[in-house]
Amino acid sequence: MDWETEISSSGEEAVVRGKKLEEVMEMGFSDAIYLILKGERPTDEESEVFNTVLSSSIDHGVGNPSTVSARTVQSGGNSMNASVAAGILALGDSHGGAIEEAMKLVQSSKSAEKIVEEKLEEGERVPGLGHKVYEEEDPRAQKILEKARENGFDGESIENMLELKQELADKKVDLVLNVDGAIAAVMSEIGWDWRLGKGIFIIARTPGIVAHVREEMDEEPFRRQEGSYEGE
Amino acid sequence: MDWETEISSSGEEAVVRGKKLEEVMEMGFSDAIYLILKGERPTDEESEVFNTVLSSSIDHGVGNPSTVSARTVQSGGNSMNASVAAGILALGDSHGGAIEEAMKLVQSSKSAEKIVEEKLEEGERVPGLGHKVYEEEDPRAQKILEKARENGFDGESIENMLELKQELADKKVDLVLNVDGAIAAVMSEIGWDWRLGKGIFIIARTPGIVAHVREEMDEEPFRRQEGSYEGE
Amino acid sequence: MDWETEISSSGEEAVVRGKKLEEVMEMGFSDAIYLILKGERPTDEESEVFNTVLSSSIDHGVGNPSTVSARTVQSGGNSMNASVAAGILALGDSHGGAIEEAMKLVQSSKSAEKIVEEKLEEGERVPGLGHKVYEEEDPRAQKILEKARENGFDGESIENMLELKQELADKKVDLVLNVDGAIAAVMSEIGWDWRLGKGIFIIARTPGIVAHVREEMDEEPFRRQEGSYEGE
Amino acid sequence: MDWETEISSSGEEAVVRGKKLEEVMEMGFSDAIYLILKGERPTDEESEVFNTVLSSSIDHGVGNPSTVSARTVQSGGNSMNASVAAGILALGDSHGGAIEEAMKLVQSSKSAEKIVEEKLEEGERVPGLGHKVYEEEDPRAQKILEKARENGFDGESIENMLELKQELADKKVDLVLNVDGAIAAVMSEIGWDWRLGKGIFIIARTPGIVAHVREEMDEEPFRRQEGSYEGE
Repeated sequence: MDWETEISSSGEEAVVRGKKLEEVMEMGFSDAIYLILKGERPTDEESEVFNTVLSSSIDHGVGNPSTVSARTVQSGGNSMNASVAAGILALGDSHGGAIEEAMKLVQSSKSAEKIVEEKLEEGERVPGLGHKVYEEEDPRAQKILEKARENGFDGESIENMLELKQELADKKVDLVLNVDGAIAAVMSEIGWDWRLGKGIFIIARTPGIVAHVREEMDEEPFRRQEGSYEGE
Repeated sequence: MDWETEISSSGEEAVVRGKKLEEVMEMGFSDAIYLILKGERPTDEESEVFNTVLSSSIDHGVGNPSTVSARTVQSGGNSMNASVAAGILALGDSHGGAIEEAMKLVQSSKSAEKIVEEKLEEGERVPGLGHKVYEEEDPRAQKILEKARENGFDGESIENMLELKQELADKKVDLVLNVDGAIAAVMSEIGWDWRLGKGIFIIARTPGIVAHVREEMDEEPFRRQEGSYEGE
Repeated sequence: MDWETEISSSGEEAVVRGKKLEEVMEMGFSDAIYLILKGERPTDEESEVFNTVLSSSIDHGVGNPSTVSARTVQSGGNSMNASVAAGILALGDSHGGAIEEAMKLVQSSKSAEKIVEEKLEEGERVPGLGHKVYEEEDPRAQKILEKARENGFDGESIENMLELKQELADKKVDLVLNVDGAIAAVMSEIGWDWRLGKGIFIIARTPGIVAHVREEMDEEPFRRQEGSYEGE
Repeated sequence: MDWETEISSSGEEAVVRGKKLEEVMEMGFSDAIYLILKGERPTDEESEVFNTVLSSSIDHGVGNPSTVSARTVQSGGNSMNASVAAGILALGDSHGGAIEEAMKLVQSSKSAEKIVEEKLEEGERVPGLGHKVYEEEDPRAQKILEKARENGFDGESIENMLELKQELADKKVDLVLNVDGAIAAVMSEIGWDWRLGKGIFIIARTPGIVAHVREEMDEEPFRRQEGSYEGE
């Protein structure tokens, strides 16, 4: 087995995507993330949008599955890295998965009409639309779109996402564009592969998970939750 | 990199610890587990004790950390194997870890007196002793010891464990021998390495975790738990 | 949040699937696994077949993804449970996934003809058929089928699996029934839910992974593999 | 079970460490990371140093344990998040663990003399010192220290780390300060808790792991490595 990569090398001549590690160390961290995943440094405009996207998803309260699994594993008497891994394991199709799915849709060649039609037929949701709390608009989504427009990004991918929303509204299902939908639209707009949709969310959320694991270290170990046996 | 192993090989001449896979397939599963971990088949007596140990730990209600983390990861929209992995991640020092620690103690050359003295000084518990519910005796522990005695195992390791209990009682800390302590004593008695203490527990509990993940598949995704923000 | 389960309870009246834990401790481990996953004790015949299935998959050499990931994580300086979890994480769609997929097919109402037709159209493999080494027959698969027949299991699910093989052969793709296909046929025959296909494999393989992690503990930490940078 | 946190809340009034999420979205991502882990925004100087630390560890070639385990799990047919989790699982005591250990030492009240004496007695390495390739100096470590000094950080923690190096050199073990040691010194200098040492490394390395998993998606599944059976 010999691993081949176009990502990085180690040793005296260490590089990341063709740039010397010393040079990478002079970039801000978010630019380095952009470089390693997209293969090129961002422009100032791309960088600003990317930072907004990442910061928007850094954490979201204590009760969601990734936080619960990370803190629960810590509570079983485990290391920082095992606990963080458990948090990331929770980030499945139902937890941040809408970003990837929405990116795939706005990057596809299917019309918004056809996509919405298919989703309705299959009884599935259109990813990136709808929110439990926000009925008029999701302020995080609006801020991301605004930041994109301020930086000159207002093209086809954002349009595609908004068309999905409009199509659905025309069918009497009027839902807000949520933060996942806005991230999907904007990341597609700056040219990112939809296969990285979940990866973006993982990178954004990892610092929040680390913070929760650190906080849990100060608690009593072995949290037991309430349960009831409903068998015979 | 070339991996070397004394455990098994694949292909037409597949073996496990020197026995042909066809022969292993004729063993019961628990004997095959014994073989792969200890390097030899159990006697009938060892096999009976080992089965009791494994079955005793197969599951223990819905509210403990491993069940919660496994079901929570499933609930995030993940595969069976990712969810089971999250359950196993929870099995840290505070969740089944007492077996390994107690095995290490009963296999050490330190006297029970010295061990108890050190634990009391360090303000630590003696592993394998004490139970929240059982004050007189832990019936699972008693059953494991009984099964061991019936099969002719009543030697030094079991004695060492009971001496730890007695030493502690002499210091006015009278605690029951719990199931972890009984497993540690009996597995040591049949000659198992303490470094496998956690492994035994993982193998025993994995079927329970699989059952919980399967059950969770029928629930609504994305379980959100109650939480409160106590920051400024 | 209140967890509800039909699997088990803890405490003085601890049960598994309605049976007292004390009773479960008298079962062999493989019968206890059967009970917790299927909700009932196996007959002697079911028990024998189930043991053969589990033992057949206990380990398969050192070079496959689950062994490599488990040993590599151990080599990073991690606990037994974190390392075993990494091994189980590797057991995805391409690693033991054929069991679940084949169980789903033999339990479906689709005809073998239609299934094979669809697979060929989509350019996909029929799960449970074909082997890199064995051209005439896979001896493990034969042993599992034999064991099933000896115990009186020779019904519709096994027939469905063999029909898939025959249909494919009729299209000039003559492949052996492999061990995954035999497990799928036999587990379906004794009435197991296909959603447990991956779970069965995880339970069977976990002892092998534990053995590899224990073996790796005696090696130097931080295994580095050969790699080459192919970027600009 | 009610989870309490001082980290963040969700919903219309979502905050992170007391700051509104809208405000956090205006911070650069690395400042948001700093905020969520340290509980306060960095000064411009702290921010610059922190960015250098994170970027320095973003990736390091294809052959180390975290890359191998992440790519191997992907190769088993798994999701992005399961694969990234396997990479993070590899980041144990022997893989990035020196940062945490060195932070603990430079933050302790023990003298460098005593620390080095103890380490030599126990036959252990002093964390943060020594490198396989660099004999004169590790350029990444130098760059991190330089960046710290340029930004006015040149106090006790950095001094403590350099004293460890000097003490060891006085005992005729002359080792370079490596990148882990420099990160430990500088993060301690800007007031970070050593219990976050591994967390910093996880956050820094996650983008590299995501990039490797994405690259592996384009490869054939089920990588098998070379192995040999050395048993009887």
